[in-house]
Amino acid sequence: MRIACLCGGVGAARFLQGLVQVVDPSSITAIVNTGDDIEINGLMVSPDIDIVIYHLAGVVDEERGWGIKGDTFNCLKAMERFNLEAWFKLGDADLATHIFRTHMLRRGLRLSEVTEMERRAFGVAVKVIPMTDDRVTTMVKVDGKWVHFQDYMVKMACQGVVEGVGFAGVEKAKPAPGVMEALEEADVIIIPPSNPIVSIRPILSIEGVKDAVAKAERVVAVSPIVGGKTIKGPADKLMAALGFEVSPKGVAEIYKGLIKFMVIDQVDSHYAPQIEQMNIKVGVTNTIMRDLESKKALAAFALNLALGRQP
Amino acid sequence: MRIACLCGGVGAARFLQGLVQVVDPSSITAIVNTGDDIEINGLMVSPDIDIVIYHLAGVVDEERGWGIKGDTFNCLKAMERFNLEAWFKLGDADLATHIFRTHMLRRGLRLSEVTEMERRAFGVAVKVIPMTDDRVTTMVKVDGKWVHFQDYMVKMACQGVVEGVGFAGVEKAKPAPGVMEALEEADVIIIPPSNPIVSIRPILSIEGVKDAVAKAERVVAVSPIVGGKTIKGPADKLMAALGFEVSPKGVAEIYKGLIKFMVIDQVDSHYAPQIEQMNIKVGVTNTIMRDLESKKALAAFALNLALGRQP
Repeated sequence: MRIACLCGGVGAARFLQGLVQVVDPSSITAIVNTGDDIEINGLMVSPDIDIVIYHLAGVVDEERGWGIKGDTFNCLKAMERFNLEAWFKLGDADLATHIFRTHMLRRGLRLSEVTEMERRAFGVAVKVIPMTDDRVTTMVKVDGKWVHFQDYMVKMACQGVVEGVGFAGVEKAKPAPGVMEALEEADVIIIPPSNPIVSIRPILSIEGVKDAVAKAERVVAVSPIVGGKTIKGPADKLMAALGFEVSPKGVAEIYKGLIKFMVIDQVDSHYAPQIEQMNIKVGVTNTIMRDLESKKALAAFALNLALGRQP
Repeated sequence: MRIACLCGGVGAARFLQGLVQVVDPSSITAIVNTGDDIEINGLMVSPDIDIVIYHLAGVVDEERGWGIKGDTFNCLKAMERFNLEAWFKLGDADLATHIFRTHMLRRGLRLSEVTEMERRAFGVAVKVIPMTDDRVTTMVKVDGKWVHFQDYMVKMACQGVVEGVGFAGVEKAKPAPGVMEALEEADVIIIPPSNPIVSIRPILSIEGVKDAVAKAERVVAVSPIVGGKTIKGPADKLMAALGFEVSPKGVAEIYKGLIKFMVIDQVDSHYAPQIEQMNIKVGVTNTIMRDLESKKALAAFALNLALGRQP
């Protein structure tokens, strides 16, 4: 069995930690959002790729959801002297990844090649592919001004009125090698609980991706909205700002026509009938990933739902 | 009074620590060797510039003679995972300097501009200028093979038979802005105890530098050879390999026609007559820089010798 996952950051990474417990990790391809990528002080940072790989490698700082467990921040502190950008918290061990990525990209390698080297360096069996090797940048219009998504999320701590979201460069972006194959050959496509606006939409906006997903039979999404809010990140704010209901129903509206199955949390079970009217079969379970057991249970539930097995 | 110093790494940096105690630091220009510069994992490292600035800023790891006091090496350790070059020991706080330099150079700034920003960031009053903004690379021929000086010194720990030393790119290199002015306007030019072969020769090989030094009246060198060996680094090995006597006399031969004064150590006082025959006035004193007092005394001694004052 082959599984393709469309992945943002923490939510997807935690889901994958469960998924590798229920299927052979090498049967999974994680297609990862790169719209959040940013060049900081000349270093190329791919936050979602690193979050996915660090989680799967078991080195992530679980509490923060990013960076490396027990990392120090001595370089970052020293950067202040030079007025370098220090708002994006890069730990010392984490920096090695960005130095490596930057070095390889400057040598002419593609992001997908570097990502393959990175996941191997971390001993990760799941295939991790950036959505594209081209530069796509998620921009958020806040109080009348377009800013990089990282500026909005980290620098501005998601404050301000969001008026729009766009993906600069997406028109010309091609899917990275392996993306289309993974989608076309997948027995199941999973959209883990990621931000539908700024994590999944960029992936779906890459040429050919949306059509490939729409064509697939077994596509299941897990709602990142539980009880009217997100577990992590600004999905709720962004959905509201763009006029979507902040609920599994709102998520289903975003994915309508693309997914055939949807997992929603027990607290949201009353949304099931409305979602099923959109021709989406709903599975209700606990979707809060507190520990490895709950991650594993959620992954198994989503997979079984898509496969038509009794969950 | 204006002073120009031709500087290598540790020896020069320690001498400068003394010199700033006896004259106004802002009257000193340090023209620094960049032949040891190396690109490591895509980062531009200028070892001698950093050694000079770190010493003058009082942040250097005095014991090692390079890097930052109390620094951690967590990024370096993490680099091993990626098979990145880890033989060149870059500390975490030290890395900020290289990330800054690389970022600014890639933005199109010249090394001299970046170095000026660096010394200001570290609050250093001495003007620090790289010998050139062009790439010059000191190469050492060891056992029949040309290698980068850092490979010879760090990776090979100065093992092997040295057959030659060359400076790749030096023919086309121009002195950095301020180098010629500093030499021409200097009341005294000092060559602190640096490696004459791989620290001072590259500087003297830059177009116009040797002539400017030869033209100056008050040029004083401090012998880096004491009692037949160097305090730090491979000057003795390299001098012997290139056929020079490993003594202040050998050093004098290298600088003959360029310097008018030379400071040698008490243990080498018997070389004074032979050196004076080369038309170089000799001053004998303790040249071992153990502490700030001895650095200060040596700097004052060299300066007074060149100025014709009673030391």
